[in-house]
Amino acid sequence: MRDPRYDILFEPVAIGPVTTRNRFYQVPHCSGMGHRYARSDAHMRAMKAEGGWGVVSTQETEIHPSSDLTPSNQGRIWDGADVRVFREATDLIHERGSLAAVQLVHNGLHTANRLSRIAPYAPSDAVVDLDDPVQARGMDKADIREFRRWHREAAIRAREAGFDIVYVYAGHDMTLLMHFLLSRHNHRIDEYGGSLENRLRLFREVLADTRDAIGDRCALAIRFAVDELMGSAGIERDGEGRDIVAALAEEPDLWDVNLSDWSNDSQSARFSQEGYQEDYTRFVKQVTTKPVVGVGRYTSPDTMVRVIRQGHLDLIGAARPSIADPFLPLKIREGRIDEIRECIGCNICVAGDNIVAPMRCTQNPTIGEEWRKGWHPEKVPALAGPATALIVGGGPAGLEAARALAQRGASVIIADAGAEWGGRVSRESRLPGLSSWARVRDWRLGQLRTAANVEMYLSSPLTAEDILSYGAEHVAIAVGARWREDGVGRAHRLPLPFLKNGKTAGVDRLLDEGSSAAGPGPVVVYDDDRYYMGSALAEQLASAGIDTTYVTPAPLVAAWTVNTLEQARIHRRLLELGVKIRLLSALADRAAETVTIRCVYSEATEVIPCDVLVPVTARLPSSELWTALQARQEEWLDSGLTRVERIGDCLAPGTIAAANYSGHLFARSLGVLEDAESADAFR
Amino acid sequence: MRDPRYDILFEPVAIGPVTTRNRFYQVPHCSGMGHRYARSDAHMRAMKAEGGWGVVSTQETEIHPSSDLTPSNQGRIWDGADVRVFREATDLIHERGSLAAVQLVHNGLHTANRLSRIAPYAPSDAVVDLDDPVQARGMDKADIREFRRWHREAAIRAREAGFDIVYVYAGHDMTLLMHFLLSRHNHRIDEYGGSLENRLRLFREVLADTRDAIGDRCALAIRFAVDELMGSAGIERDGEGRDIVAALAEEPDLWDVNLSDWSNDSQSARFSQEGYQEDYTRFVKQVTTKPVVGVGRYTSPDTMVRVIRQGHLDLIGAARPSIADPFLPLKIREGRIDEIRECIGCNICVAGDNIVAPMRCTQNPTIGEEWRKGWHPEKVPALAGPATALIVGGGPAGLEAARALAQRGASVIIADAGAEWGGRVSRESRLPGLSSWARVRDWRLGQLRTAANVEMYLSSPLTAEDILSYGAEHVAIAVGARWREDGVGRAHRLPLPFLKNGKTAGVDRLLDEGSSAAGPGPVVVYDDDRYYMGSALAEQLASAGIDTTYVTPAPLVAAWTVNTLEQARIHRRLLELGVKIRLLSALADRAAETVTIRCVYSEATEVIPCDVLVPVTARLPSSELWTALQARQEEWLDSGLTRVERIGDCLAPGTIAAANYSGHLFARSLGVLEDAESADAFR
Repeated sequence: MRDPRYDILFEPVAIGPVTTRNRFYQVPHCSGMGHRYARSDAHMRAMKAEGGWGVVSTQETEIHPSSDLTPSNQGRIWDGADVRVFREATDLIHERGSLAAVQLVHNGLHTANRLSRIAPYAPSDAVVDLDDPVQARGMDKADIREFRRWHREAAIRAREAGFDIVYVYAGHDMTLLMHFLLSRHNHRIDEYGGSLENRLRLFREVLADTRDAIGDRCALAIRFAVDELMGSAGIERDGEGRDIVAALAEEPDLWDVNLSDWSNDSQSARFSQEGYQEDYTRFVKQVTTKPVVGVGRYTSPDTMVRVIRQGHLDLIGAARPSIADPFLPLKIREGRIDEIRECIGCNICVAGDNIVAPMRCTQNPTIGEEWRKGWHPEKVPALAGPATALIVGGGPAGLEAARALAQRGASVIIADAGAEWGGRVSRESRLPGLSSWARVRDWRLGQLRTAANVEMYLSSPLTAEDILSYGAEHVAIAVGARWREDGVGRAHRLPLPFLKNGKTAGVDRLLDEGSSAAGPGPVVVYDDDRYYMGSALAEQLASAGIDTTYVTPAPLVAAWTVNTLEQARIHRRLLELGVKIRLLSALADRAAETVTIRCVYSEATEVIPCDVLVPVTARLPSSELWTALQARQEEWLDSGLTRVERIGDCLAPGTIAAANYSGHLFARSLGVLEDAESADAFR
Repeated sequence: MRDPRYDILFEPVAIGPVTTRNRFYQVPHCSGMGHRYARSDAHMRAMKAEGGWGVVSTQETEIHPSSDLTPSNQGRIWDGADVRVFREATDLIHERGSLAAVQLVHNGLHTANRLSRIAPYAPSDAVVDLDDPVQARGMDKADIREFRRWHREAAIRAREAGFDIVYVYAGHDMTLLMHFLLSRHNHRIDEYGGSLENRLRLFREVLADTRDAIGDRCALAIRFAVDELMGSAGIERDGEGRDIVAALAEEPDLWDVNLSDWSNDSQSARFSQEGYQEDYTRFVKQVTTKPVVGVGRYTSPDTMVRVIRQGHLDLIGAARPSIADPFLPLKIREGRIDEIRECIGCNICVAGDNIVAPMRCTQNPTIGEEWRKGWHPEKVPALAGPATALIVGGGPAGLEAARALAQRGASVIIADAGAEWGGRVSRESRLPGLSSWARVRDWRLGQLRTAANVEMYLSSPLTAEDILSYGAEHVAIAVGARWREDGVGRAHRLPLPFLKNGKTAGVDRLLDEGSSAAGPGPVVVYDDDRYYMGSALAEQLASAGIDTTYVTPAPLVAAWTVNTLEQARIHRRLLELGVKIRLLSALADRAAETVTIRCVYSEATEVIPCDVLVPVTARLPSSELWTALQARQEEWLDSGLTRVERIGDCLAPGTIAAANYSGHLFARSLGVLEDAESADAFR
């Protein structure tokens, strides 16, 4: 059972009139589900409660149509119809012994009201902070009264919906209450602008309104960003951040403190370590007697204990770690530390909100599928009877398929041609900043190695003949993909013959051999993949002292990482390392010592010194084994094979999260007859 | 009544087994509503039928979860639940005497399946054409069989849903059937790849499947892009475009032909004239005996007649003109040519799909509100009794408020301080390429000038005293906004004092005085507005021979015009005019003859020659009149004023479409008691 040194994590904590059973606190986080997929969201939250999180929060929840983040899938508590929807979530959370919290929000100038068509509200006339051609109206006194009424009525609705903790939210530069606090947004000359006390006025009023609305049944929480990481141009820990906490110290029942903006709050593992917010938030407990919750991608119970014992926090806040492992608290409580599925900090979950789709997780393939597919992160239905499964390939898809099939009771063999487990996960985790990604491999290996019904073989390439002669009923081909070296990607859909005029180092070679495979330079990394790989390789090359130019047809370095909140940091890191950057440029020609790039809008070209070109464009599934097996399809049944499928990158290359899901889906669907015609499984 | 020369437009046309009552054909177009706002979409389509469009089509309609464009609001006909939804739309369309068409689609590699999580399908392994880190699987024969089955079953569902015309869609580089046609996507070496006949195979099969599925009750339509405007790298009118039409000439009952990609098909007025597709599509009727429909932003009945008489088209296709005026056919039929509300070609409607929200229109403030608000484009409920209204300001908001109030029966006075009507619309329509925008003014002036209950005064600045002494019951302040000159926008939220170190020419001055206000240069246009204004001014300046540099903190020139499909054309035009471009750059300093810009990621700066700086960042509402009126609020009632409101840009600066809507909303809400607490009006 539990190590006594973790007992402190399971102490109850009083939060105003309510008490949480332990110190595990799932702070408000977006899910990409919200009001559009409300039932999916409710059951995802309920799973956190089942897994032992003492408090489970919604994501930001719009209080009024003048805060309409369409098309984003946020929470909505516009009226009574929404109350009924949230009642389902709070009931589920309560049934599982946890408190339910709601983060009310008015997004101020951080919304364009695309659906409601209402002119957004702000302390002063201002253009919204999206690219939409929309400006917010500077609020007059009547507008302020209206806003206060909306917030008060939303708080009443929140109480009616069964929430135990109601948030007043001034964080992430995303809320009207924060906009009033900030001098750069608040240019008012009345009693709501100017001095800090004036800029605080609306916050104070709304706190009092909310307290009045929720009465003595619910706790009142403040979520506040204590530092914006922009020096004196914004809120600072040693300036107004501290002043504001001090001014409101005893007003709420709970302080939930963090960094702003969102990219600072939810820093990926590529740019931060566990506990990265401590230096900014630890002062808060010195200023207030109220309980304090904060975050920092905590996955280690020892770190959590330290944070509590050092008096830094009272409650361990978590968003991402609770997504990667909804059962993290329960596993600590039951002494199953090794079973914790640690967040890798890749921010794929965050991307869900940004791409407006239910979030995914690289570690937890069941997140978001709790209701739609009825998936539980810890339980998989046992198979009806004995079954044998052969998994060919030990990357993320193969490992997860083997793990989940073993959990279901199948006799599993997993074989990999290489000398180490993990496939692309192992290779990519050696890139700068990505070491935590190896957790995807390590957690599954840990599970597989303790399973009695699994045999594991490395350095075991299998042929079609091998597979047929082995005769497992269920075979998954999970042999991955190889990076293309012919330039084909988004900008170029056909191979570029001129690439043969010079030396090329493919991504796979760089991953296997390191920077030396491309040295001594100059090297040009051509990134038409647009996620992390091109920039990570450029970072690795430049860190090794190699003259590196990064070229992309996209308008941004690592364009898709806008969605994982990493984009600006990646660009800055490349600049710091001296990487030369060429945006909006495709490949036009190649010679032995140069590459010619062309503007994507015109015929303008530039010649760049280039000894070795690294094309990072797209991947090709490793199809040889599948093709060979398909050629012998008539032999499958006679050989005892009832099901042979490709999973992961060897079906269609994608994210590690997608590969993991693909492996999990293979394991889940074994023996399950689905109504193939039902679209409900996908809605 | 109708001029006989337009009779030809009202001839019925047989389309296979069905017959349309006239030649007005609303081709499939996105609405930003689709399956998410299905009832809004249905009633919007129904309004087109009421307005006389003989055929009314849906937007592209996904046939299966493997074509899941989440979060985009497309049509969906995944299963029987969707059939029931579409039945409402087809019933409404039929009740109004029109045919209903459905554009079935599988998006192939143009989807990331963010919700369904299915690996996308493509002729060959390929990365999707979005930035998502997702690749499509090259389809094997079993996949092709599955796809054909999905399409056939969707066609059966379409017939069940009551559609009269079922599309097979190979256009816009967005569909699996087009991907198979294109050599750049189809790298297959089997009978589905290689020769044109092989690449056509799947298209032929699906046409046959669909014919078989819909039987003899529905017509079969092909939508096909005859030219991609990329020369020999794509389909060309004089190459495979013609060959494909010839090969399938008699297969469908209707050819719906256009350009690809979408930015070529839906060119804005800034880059094209009415009929801009004729040179590409007129060959089609020479190759097939089947009726042909095409588009070209046709709003002139004389042009339509010419196009028919010249044998170019049989049916006048329209998307945008049918949005700007759903009653265009009826107005021609009834000889009310002057009442046609002509599309201005601004592509705000198109942006709705791209920003994933119900579409808006700069000319028609009721589009998308037919069901949600019960708004009719031609009818506004009459007022219960006499009422007087004073509209201060004759820009888009004021003109629309006055027009709609006059239509409701109020006695209306509209006064403008300036010497011409139209406000910003008049000024902006003088920018290069934007002359059609004056239609917003001209249509409203035409309506107002024929109304007996309207008085109009130019050169009539009004004070608060004037307004109080006039004593109209309803007063709208519509005096617009002025462009800021202090640098405040998105990147800089506080004024930049250093701008005083050099000369500045504000946007308003340039609009009033033309390029000479900034000459002789060098001029730097600093665009933090990110829509059209900065680039239009740069174009105007450079066209006048002035040395011009365009600087923006955004990653793209005129970044938001990605949504209006204009972005690449704008960038190219600036390059052609010799405009120097600096992206991802904010303002750092100013001297008499230079401006210093700074990289948004770092401290790197560049000094640019600059005599005059043109800041295009944000606007400030003209608030003096409102402030003066507010100061005398106690006098309102005694003066007979029951309602005084700001509308349009003087409440919150936005698009012309938003100003128009604001004016229309003011007129509609007069005398209407709304349940202020109901959020339904905004959902």
